[in-house]
Amino acid sequence: MLDLRPVGYVIGLLVACLGLTMLAPLISDLTVNNGHWPVFLEASVITVFSGGLTALSCRNGVTEGLSIRQTFLLTTLVWLALPFFGSIPFVIGATNLSFTNAFFEAMSGLTTTGATVIGGIEALPEGLKLWRGILQWLGGIGIIVMAMVFLPELKVGGMQVFRSEAFETMGKILPRATEIASRISVIYVGLTLTCALAYSATGMNSFDAMVHAMTTVSTGGMANTDSSFGIYSAGAHYVACVFMVLAALPFVRYVQIITGSAKPLFRDPQVRAFLATIGIIVCVLSVFLFETFHGYNEIAFREALFNVVSIMTGTGYSSADYMQWGPFAAVLFFLVGLIGGCAGSTACSIKIFRYQLLFASIKTQIKRIHTPHGVFTPRFDGRPVGQDVLNSVMAFFVAFIVTMGLITVALGLTGLDFITSVSGAATALANIGPGLGDEIGPAGNFQGLNDAAKWILSIAMLVGRLEVLSVFTLLTWYFWRS
Amino acid sequence: MLDLRPVGYVIGLLVACLGLTMLAPLISDLTVNNGHWPVFLEASVITVFSGGLTALSCRNGVTEGLSIRQTFLLTTLVWLALPFFGSIPFVIGATNLSFTNAFFEAMSGLTTTGATVIGGIEALPEGLKLWRGILQWLGGIGIIVMAMVFLPELKVGGMQVFRSEAFETMGKILPRATEIASRISVIYVGLTLTCALAYSATGMNSFDAMVHAMTTVSTGGMANTDSSFGIYSAGAHYVACVFMVLAALPFVRYVQIITGSAKPLFRDPQVRAFLATIGIIVCVLSVFLFETFHGYNEIAFREALFNVVSIMTGTGYSSADYMQWGPFAAVLFFLVGLIGGCAGSTACSIKIFRYQLLFASIKTQIKRIHTPHGVFTPRFDGRPVGQDVLNSVMAFFVAFIVTMGLITVALGLTGLDFITSVSGAATALANIGPGLGDEIGPAGNFQGLNDAAKWILSIAMLVGRLEVLSVFTLLTWYFWRS
Ligand SMILES: [K+]
Ligand SMILES: [K+]
Repeated sequence: MLDLRPVGYVIGLLVACLGLTMLAPLISDLTVNNGHWPVFLEASVITVFSGGLTALSCRNGVTEGLSIRQTFLLTTLVWLALPFFGSIPFVIGATNLSFTNAFFEAMSGLTTTGATVIGGIEALPEGLKLWRGILQWLGGIGIIVMAMVFLPELKVGGMQVFRSEAFETMGKILPRATEIASRISVIYVGLTLTCALAYSATGMNSFDAMVHAMTTVSTGGMANTDSSFGIYSAGAHYVACVFMVLAALPFVRYVQIITGSAKPLFRDPQVRAFLATIGIIVCVLSVFLFETFHGYNEIAFREALFNVVSIMTGTGYSSADYMQWGPFAAVLFFLVGLIGGCAGSTACSIKIFRYQLLFASIKTQIKRIHTPHGVFTPRFDGRPVGQDVLNSVMAFFVAFIVTMGLITVALGLTGLDFITSVSGAATALANIGPGLGDEIGPAGNFQGLNDAAKWILSIAMLVGRLEVLSVFTLLTWYFWRS
Repeated sequence: MLDLRPVGYVIGLLVACLGLTMLAPLISDLTVNNGHWPVFLEASVITVFSGGLTALSCRNGVTEGLSIRQTFLLTTLVWLALPFFGSIPFVIGATNLSFTNAFFEAMSGLTTTGATVIGGIEALPEGLKLWRGILQWLGGIGIIVMAMVFLPELKVGGMQVFRSEAFETMGKILPRATEIASRISVIYVGLTLTCALAYSATGMNSFDAMVHAMTTVSTGGMANTDSSFGIYSAGAHYVACVFMVLAALPFVRYVQIITGSAKPLFRDPQVRAFLATIGIIVCVLSVFLFETFHGYNEIAFREALFNVVSIMTGTGYSSADYMQWGPFAAVLFFLVGLIGGCAGSTACSIKIFRYQLLFASIKTQIKRIHTPHGVFTPRFDGRPVGQDVLNSVMAFFVAFIVTMGLITVALGLTGLDFITSVSGAATALANIGPGLGDEIGPAGNFQGLNDAAKWILSIAMLVGRLEVLSVFTLLTWYFWRS
């Protein structure tokens, strides 16, 4: 039998911590004196109390390590428990959402998807705006830790490629997670503060600058306005681009920069491929916009840059309703969203290193055609890639595409139209945020969807954020047999 | 240096044969005395002459075998040369098509895609209707031979799984191709005649029965009316379903039935999975149609059955404009088209055995989570599957999905809308026929698309029919270096 107590203990602690972070929006509401603070007091008490009790009741089962199966269970259950408690302020607060909507919003926040069911965000109490930012910010650091510690251990989606990185000799999984989290936190906090200062410098007010910094470095994409980044200045757009890109690079490289060497960052094949891909796509789209709409000017280039960076990093801000740019742009944004950023960052989707590994494998196979008995091994970052890694990546890719298909069908069955079903499945599974079409496109939101669709999308966000197979594994007979 | 003469010799012979088959529509036009026969005489003379000259000029380089690289080149060049000459009757005949349209139509025919740029098909001279049928019929047998002989040899797309089948001991590639082609031809002709008789029995006139039998057993899907199968009787629909399914099963099983055993057919895991999948999807769609439109009646069941079988086998006939059935049906048909039939048949798309192999690999990986040091091997048909096969299948899947994405972008760039771009790329690459939306959906055709889109789709049909990587291999530096 699987001992669930260590899992319950960690989840309890994390839920309690989430409850403590609710004090931040409480303070924020108190500061502006909008009378909304009791919401966060109540939510905080419930959450700290529930989390604390769970941790206490599981305390006597805690050992130093977690088994692989316990780790699997932990990753999925954490990402179910946190949105559950994170949704409380949306239910009892000024948004007055149904549980379905609130859970969707919290899941969208914590998975750094950024899709929203709230209209009229400008008019929300400060605490709720901040809470959305905090959910995304916590989700972001959670993802990095998960990508650096848990997923390589679970060998899910080929993340074990990154196993022999900076932290490999750091011992058992939970102490290592704590150690990595603290080192990464310094960088994450530093990036967030720098980003907030930069936004302020462009003329954004300090509250918006802070919240947007949180949703930028987490590539979350929730904004304090219904029109996302459309109302902000050119400066803010460029600042956002810089920090969205920084947030989509592997955070282990920043640890290395701090400890003395920037070389690994510039030599990282993921980073190079990621920047090159963004560059090419921005050029193509800029030329397209120059030709069709704006003439040769800065606005067209900036809109191409901002929106491509936003979608490819999986942030999901928008500066314009690119559905107005015609079908080519729509198709392009759809596919750019399926590329994604670098592993070990807050970015999501299929991710560039998987394409690199898959293409390396295809290249090897083509070489074998010419020299059938030659020995060729796919390489990544100069090192040969093991077959188990390729198999994992392949499994991820297939599972991702097939899941996207099934979610599309399920959404279609709830009555959504073709473009909403297809792009909704993609944007949720890839944790991007906006979809395509009038309803869930950059100018719309997810408010008007039916409840069934919202639950399907919530599950899709979870599945996508946990690299698909770590969730599906829990649903197999193999996992549970003793 | 690659010796191109053996390749030229085979292509020349095949082109000359194509020229000879043009005598069939010539006879057809003469019989009904519509004055259109000189078109086919002219086309036939040009084609036989060109093919014969090519073969003759390459004759002194012919050896008994073909190298792997020559085989690669042969498969792609054959499927370029035949549509080129096959398009002549559409240019000089009553259709009076531009070369772009004629090449699209011939490529669509020979790749058994069945997408058409011709409106008013009912009014065409008999010869041209027959010629469309013949192109599909020849394409169908060509595909089976290619899938049974060439692709396993080239190790493209995991087809080498089927290498140790009935014909493995038959020696060198060209004699083997001839031997297999002759054995399969008997079955293919038999199926076609039976199908034609069955259509006649449902009240279809003998000419339509013959042409539709040709486009049914090749899972081609070109019909003699603009409204596809909509005008025919319920009986014709059921007959079509039976023969579409038969045409999508592995033809090697029919060879085994003739030589005495039907067991291999019923034990084939591909066949079981294929039939089970069709069954489930037909049930789901039937219930959906019962609930939303028709009530519990035979028509709703038949429309679900006919159109699902048509799309999943890649035939592409339609009995109704299923775009009217709402977004769920559209999404479902889109994804059903990406499943496909069995390998070694005339069916196309990703094919059911690849999903079986990929899922077997994922299952193995999940088992390893529970028992990390256990030895698990993915199995297919009871036998362990080699890693090279899995790598090939993975390469195919990735190449297929990425190519579909790139074609979608290219189509978007030519100005097609989202649903036309996405479904057009899928339907061409998977060789199905109809797409989605008003323009290229079951009620439309490809006539109104711009020329650039038609060329992109023609290339997509070719690439899809040749299992993607056998074409891409030709575009690499590795292939051409000496
Ligand atoms: K996002
Ligand atoms: K077809």
